[in-house]
Amino acid sequence: MNPATHTPEHFLWSFADGVGTVTLNRPEKKNPLTFESYAELRDFFRALVYTPEVKAIILTGEGGNFCSGGDVNEIIGPLTEMDMPQLLEFTRMTGDLVKAIRHCPQPVIAAVDGVCVGAGAILAMASDLRIAAPDAKTAFLFNRVGLAGCDMGACAILPRIIGQGRASELLFFGRSMSAEEGERWGFWNALIEADDLLSEAGKWAARIAAGPTFANGITKTQLNAEWDMGIDQAIEAEAQAQAICMQTEDFRRAYRAFIAKEKPVFEGN
Amino acid sequence: MNPATHTPEHFLWSFADGVGTVTLNRPEKKNPLTFESYAELRDFFRALVYTPEVKAIILTGEGGNFCSGGDVNEIIGPLTEMDMPQLLEFTRMTGDLVKAIRHCPQPVIAAVDGVCVGAGAILAMASDLRIAAPDAKTAFLFNRVGLAGCDMGACAILPRIIGQGRASELLFFGRSMSAEEGERWGFWNALIEADDLLSEAGKWAARIAAGPTFANGITKTQLNAEWDMGIDQAIEAEAQAQAICMQTEDFRRAYRAFIAKEKPVFEGN
Amino acid sequence: MNPATHTPEHFLWSFADGVGTVTLNRPEKKNPLTFESYAELRDFFRALVYTPEVKAIILTGEGGNFCSGGDVNEIIGPLTEMDMPQLLEFTRMTGDLVKAIRHCPQPVIAAVDGVCVGAGAILAMASDLRIAAPDAKTAFLFNRVGLAGCDMGACAILPRIIGQGRASELLFFGRSMSAEEGERWGFWNALIEADDLLSEAGKWAARIAAGPTFANGITKTQLNAEWDMGIDQAIEAEAQAQAICMQTEDFRRAYRAFIAKEKPVFEGN
Repeated sequence: MNPATHTPEHFLWSFADGVGTVTLNRPEKKNPLTFESYAELRDFFRALVYTPEVKAIILTGEGGNFCSGGDVNEIIGPLTEMDMPQLLEFTRMTGDLVKAIRHCPQPVIAAVDGVCVGAGAILAMASDLRIAAPDAKTAFLFNRVGLAGCDMGACAILPRIIGQGRASELLFFGRSMSAEEGERWGFWNALIEADDLLSEAGKWAARIAAGPTFANGITKTQLNAEWDMGIDQAIEAEAQAQAICMQTEDFRRAYRAFIAKEKPVFEGN
Repeated sequence: MNPATHTPEHFLWSFADGVGTVTLNRPEKKNPLTFESYAELRDFFRALVYTPEVKAIILTGEGGNFCSGGDVNEIIGPLTEMDMPQLLEFTRMTGDLVKAIRHCPQPVIAAVDGVCVGAGAILAMASDLRIAAPDAKTAFLFNRVGLAGCDMGACAILPRIIGQGRASELLFFGRSMSAEEGERWGFWNALIEADDLLSEAGKWAARIAAGPTFANGITKTQLNAEWDMGIDQAIEAEAQAQAICMQTEDFRRAYRAFIAKEKPVFEGN
Repeated sequence: MNPATHTPEHFLWSFADGVGTVTLNRPEKKNPLTFESYAELRDFFRALVYTPEVKAIILTGEGGNFCSGGDVNEIIGPLTEMDMPQLLEFTRMTGDLVKAIRHCPQPVIAAVDGVCVGAGAILAMASDLRIAAPDAKTAFLFNRVGLAGCDMGACAILPRIIGQGRASELLFFGRSMSAEEGERWGFWNALIEADDLLSEAGKWAARIAAGPTFANGITKTQLNAEWDMGIDQAIEAEAQAQAICMQTEDFRRAYRAFIAKEKPVFEGN
């Protein structure tokens, strides 16, 4: 993938100074997902593994909303007619999108305003950092459409972000979480006025892009990999992972800058 | 078990509209547990697996208190005289009660006022959702009776609800957690005035009972099962679990209701 | 190790009434760690396993700061010149210090004022309980020196204390966490004015030292061991661990004291 020329079909893409922005763009329907956009997003995040020029990702939605989830007519209707192999093919594809978001080395920053529900809430949850406008309304609403809360990793990931009790409430009720609740519970890293949301996301992404991006990718790898390790096993894994980072030039750049009383300039190697 | 006619010996049981209420009922001693009530509660929650008419459970206590834990005279005294096989038989029985609460498909809502200590605090912790009156006082007081904090799953479950640091404090000190702390930390899903506590629990339970109860049971299964899975493993597990739910009639009911602009009526299949 | 006569080279040690205090003591540089102090601290915490006279540990820093982490000149400089086996030897040594803090049976209370960064933040994180002065500034600043956030267990342990989203922010940015944030997020168990910090830590430690210390050690063992167990496996582990504690004399002492309406006096056996 060449980030400078990449032209996706089902979402907007822009790229500058190491920061790529993915914008879900069907604002007239609050940016729902379709079979095609799921697949293209999955392939896109998978390709990021081999695209080191991209150092941070902003994930957002057009027109004052983030994402309304799987489109009722284009996804839910067809699902009601499918047999089991077809259903599993679909649920695995949606899960593969979350895996791809978790496994690309770039930190992903969700910038969320308005509606953030169903698979939209999952996309925010699967991101590394999350900022929202005060009007953001987030609902893991699966049980309101007759399904279980266990969609695309929600029963595993959401409790680790906001705690088991609060996650249970959101998943059993499918109720909307206000932006204020989400900040208090640790879902949102910060609440930002809607007008400033994208520029703030840009600042966060620029800060990450200016950091030691190889090491950032290792941080993300370890945040995923240590999820279900024992304490001792995790500490050994980090000893190995950090020793790798100590052989990067970025580590030496930081040391030399410190000695010279300068700000380090990282190059991601 | 026939929920309409079930008559337990050691607690009160009522059942209406799919919602069952378990009331610990020795108010003169703040509803302590005994060997017999432990065993009967364990068997009761185990039987719920085969009782689909029951769609949600409220767990509460009579007389302004939730539960004072293992009775000092009826449990702690005898325990001090037991040999190791007898002790392990007891600790396994109490653990089996927590397992039974976690493994029944019905979401369990603890409605807590007053004293909620020892095994009582564990019963609240083992529930899926927890609401409390402002006067609720919750203490994992095991170390104050010379024991370890690791009782009935507390060292595993409590940290996932309120975080490792706060759980450590409660378990090492055995100190009382105020209702306000518990809400702020994510232990209580909501604080409700004592007079309204049971009616609010009833509303929560009714909301769950009106939902897709087969799917709710799958949500609960996955919340338990993904506890110690890796991220990718959990996402695959959810792909399978959600595909199962997509073949239920409740999913189709929700879709048809949406198309007809009606509220779906779920039947749990 | 004889706690009454122990005289470490690289930190201060005092011991009274079952409570030992470790004070990092290079206040002119805000108490950085060196190769030698890492190793001595590791050996010290390992020796605590065989030192039952010590019942609780306070970990603090001299001169208004906790710890500035690995010394730039004495550690970071040399690391930039090492080959991989030497680097791994270092990262394993630092990880071994965290393992030793987690695996000694004594609860460790970090009492933190001022600077608490890098390996200093890790020492606080690895403790069981954490109190801080309002001026405490805590930063997992590894990515600001070109490294990954996965240092000494941070990607595993920090998310369990403050949640995955907040931990990700601190690790990707290396930014300072204010004391107020840390309290709100569950990192600090309490904020205490600087002048009262050590005396408050002393009270917490005394309370623990007066408890059933054998059982406290089992609580700590289980908090570590159940980290990545499934729910059922954890409940069985606790049934066994608590049955062991039920055969201690401290359990009987508590029962007899209760019957006599007295306060139990525990002896740690």
